[in-house]
Amino acid sequence: MKYTFQVQGMTCGHCERAVVHAVREVDADAIVQVDLPTGQVVVESDKSRDAVANAITEEGYTVAA
Amino acid sequence: MKYTFQVQGMTCGHCERAVVHAVREVDADAIVQVDLPTGQVVVESDKSRDAVANAITEEGYTVAA
Repeated sequence: MKYTFQVQGMTCGHCERAVVHAVREVDADAIVQVDLPTGQVVVESDKSRDAVANAITEEGYTVAA
Repeated sequence: MKYTFQVQGMTCGHCERAVVHAVREVDADAIVQVDLPTGQVVVESDKSRDAVANAITEEGYTVAA
């Protein structure tokens, strides 16, 4: 499945990597694309949307949509 | 010696840790205090001011003063 999230709180390349790694912890094969200026995160994963969103939230970022 | 730097480009806790770790790579015993909102970095180290500044710069941040 392909999910699009609006993520708040990512400010730099470290944050981008932290989000990518957090998603890959719940799905090592996930394809994750982060657009830092807009906060848009696109994830292709076999896991549920909630599972992916939770991974991002637990990393300390806010999933606004 | 105690040095105060004005560092530009630190946006989050990851950046703060990156700067601390970069300084500790040139001086494992350095005392490093970062104030993220102002960008002020205070370092106590036996190394030269230039050596500490270079470590911060090489990590990708700008030492403005």
